[in-house]
Amino acid sequence: MSETLNVGDYMTQLGERARAASRSARVLTTNQKNHALRSIAEVLASRRDALVAANADDLQAGRSRGLSEAMLDRLLLTHERIDAMLEGLRQVAELADPVGEITDLSYRPSGIQVGKMRVPLGVVGIIYESRPNVTLEAASLCLKSGNATVLRGGSEAIYSNRCIAQCITDGLAAADLDPAIIQLVTTTDREAVGALITMPDYIDVIIPRGGKTLIERITAEARVPVIKHLDGICHTYVDKFADLNKALAVSINAKTQRFGTCNTTETLLVHSDVAAEFLPRFEAELAPFNVEIRACEQALAKLSNAVPASEEDWGTEYLAPILSVKVVESLAAAIGHIECYSSAHTESIITQDYSRARRFMTEVDSSSIMVNASTRFADGFEYGLGAEIGISTDKFHARGPVGLEGLTSQKWIVLGDGHIRG
Amino acid sequence: MSETLNVGDYMTQLGERARAASRSARVLTTNQKNHALRSIAEVLASRRDALVAANADDLQAGRSRGLSEAMLDRLLLTHERIDAMLEGLRQVAELADPVGEITDLSYRPSGIQVGKMRVPLGVVGIIYESRPNVTLEAASLCLKSGNATVLRGGSEAIYSNRCIAQCITDGLAAADLDPAIIQLVTTTDREAVGALITMPDYIDVIIPRGGKTLIERITAEARVPVIKHLDGICHTYVDKFADLNKALAVSINAKTQRFGTCNTTETLLVHSDVAAEFLPRFEAELAPFNVEIRACEQALAKLSNAVPASEEDWGTEYLAPILSVKVVESLAAAIGHIECYSSAHTESIITQDYSRARRFMTEVDSSSIMVNASTRFADGFEYGLGAEIGISTDKFHARGPVGLEGLTSQKWIVLGDGHIRG
Repeated sequence: MSETLNVGDYMTQLGERARAASRSARVLTTNQKNHALRSIAEVLASRRDALVAANADDLQAGRSRGLSEAMLDRLLLTHERIDAMLEGLRQVAELADPVGEITDLSYRPSGIQVGKMRVPLGVVGIIYESRPNVTLEAASLCLKSGNATVLRGGSEAIYSNRCIAQCITDGLAAADLDPAIIQLVTTTDREAVGALITMPDYIDVIIPRGGKTLIERITAEARVPVIKHLDGICHTYVDKFADLNKALAVSINAKTQRFGTCNTTETLLVHSDVAAEFLPRFEAELAPFNVEIRACEQALAKLSNAVPASEEDWGTEYLAPILSVKVVESLAAAIGHIECYSSAHTESIITQDYSRARRFMTEVDSSSIMVNASTRFADGFEYGLGAEIGISTDKFHARGPVGLEGLTSQKWIVLGDGHIRG
Repeated sequence: MSETLNVGDYMTQLGERARAASRSARVLTTNQKNHALRSIAEVLASRRDALVAANADDLQAGRSRGLSEAMLDRLLLTHERIDAMLEGLRQVAELADPVGEITDLSYRPSGIQVGKMRVPLGVVGIIYESRPNVTLEAASLCLKSGNATVLRGGSEAIYSNRCIAQCITDGLAAADLDPAIIQLVTTTDREAVGALITMPDYIDVIIPRGGKTLIERITAEARVPVIKHLDGICHTYVDKFADLNKALAVSINAKTQRFGTCNTTETLLVHSDVAAEFLPRFEAELAPFNVEIRACEQALAKLSNAVPASEEDWGTEYLAPILSVKVVESLAAAIGHIECYSSAHTESIITQDYSRARRFMTEVDSSSIMVNASTRFADGFEYGLGAEIGISTDKFHARGPVGLEGLTSQKWIVLGDGHIRG
């Protein structure tokens, strides 16, 4: 950012450049985009040491600002993590290009052919915290989907982000593309975020990636559409007709495979008919994972090491080795509990009963509904999207894991041969 | 609206009822919804005279408030128009139900099956002006797509809207559905609109139908997503490789088939190589329609009855028998003009050249792109959607004509058999 510009003018210039660049981005061929992704990877690979050094500056500044160990770990770029970033770029290059796909082209009674063509959204603004690898990951997905991107990372990663952004700029230039297709906001001024989310003329959609506070603030203040990801308060419901062996395997996996992810189960619901048999087996199997159980009164009676759950527990995303457990009297009660406390992210029913599975799938209003599977599967890679830019807890535009398709729109195409409307 | 409530509390109660009703609306079977649509039609048919009387009250109030003849005509409900409303209800009942459709269900390497299920958005708020038939049309499309609806019509149609809303309420009740699935805001207080567009807990999306001023105000102030329809500044471009007979038929139809619709062509672009031959023929053919031509300097030289166009003309949606005409030197210049002045609604190229048609389709960023067809085809019925609730000039969520599918979202479904993530 030039010293002579104020933040508002700087952001307007950046927005104008992004809008102009989006026009060249949307007509790039798949080969051009893949070539650019590989070119960025090459530049980055050749500057590993510079990136590690820039990252060390961020870490040092972070330590002196008293960042927590968890924050510092998210900030850290090791050679192993840089390898993963490079591998990510190559994987995005290998994904199918969604842009230009024509679907549903069919003749109408009037004789015209009508179909839909998939097109980029335009300019995507990404606002994120700490992890500098997001810079590359988000930029690569936006590029592959034909969008221009404006990136705004956290101030704690500014040295790393500037280094990565320079690699992107040089990689785009080496591939003969407009470097303005991917721009980083280089000022750490907080005012820049406020500007970015209120420029509908230049920004078509904002994707925030970070904590709930960041996302709530952006949602409240944005004047452009936001693809947002709020809480992941996910439920696994063990039905009275569950195969208890499957229920055991799935619910243990849903809680313990990773604790800090949004698709981890935070509340286990158990039908009262099977609670006496299931809960002690579950507790025994869970023991090695050192998970604290917070249980309703009925569940407490079947468990030996649980503590009582408070009302607040049912609405809490722990992101930690804690699980709330509730006994319910019926499928309807399970659905009612989910309706009341779920963040509408992912819910799973464990049952062998066809009608109850069908009912759960239809009635529960969350972004992913599962039958006899671990909530941990709610993920762009597991769903076959190849990669994800986030998981949307909205219903509008994109819901659940958002891959390349979520970064596109569809326009209508009409093919006639001199057709007029009668 | 009860006399003892203030507008804010009234709207909150209405919102709470709508949210609760949306839970029952989303699990209705297709038969239940179709039965309710027919039941509403029966009630309305039996109260035609009451509706005509209520409408007469609106017309009288409108006349004494000095509404224009055009406004009064939009307000008017004749028996013929009521017939069309009833026929519309029956047509919506016959449309395929989008809710519950499962697509793309396929096995993933892990063994789970992943697919998408189409689901209602939840609660749709419709804000509209004058035409009371919108009350029924919007409500029927929202019901068929499994949504609850809150309707806010213009104060000038309040008597007609209340009468129609009562028919809807009684029709829903007669079909044993929760009447709160479709609610009308019965106060004409303007504050109610402000409340409706800022209740994200109760309203999932707002669809404004009306003039540009209304839509801009709602977009600026809304705290929930808006499916909006702004201008229709549509272009027809006659390429140098056009079949001039087709170009003549299509461009005359695109301008004159109806003047007041958003998909009417407002600007005709003509390649300079064919301007001398095409423009005089076009002018002669257009003569019977009494359309004023506002032309660029080059076009003026080929026309005998045109007036000079001002810069403002290129950005104007006339909705009237006026057409702006510009001669361009190249396909790139035509695309550049469209990029600059179009409202991104609908553009058509007339050409016999394969490569130029392909380029126009790819490069022009509007909701409908046509080749050798009249822009007047950009319409939900012509596209096979069966009906439309509006035409979106957004790229986000829904673009172009919005039918039942635009009133839905997709959730992910995952079918396993005890599958856990490794």
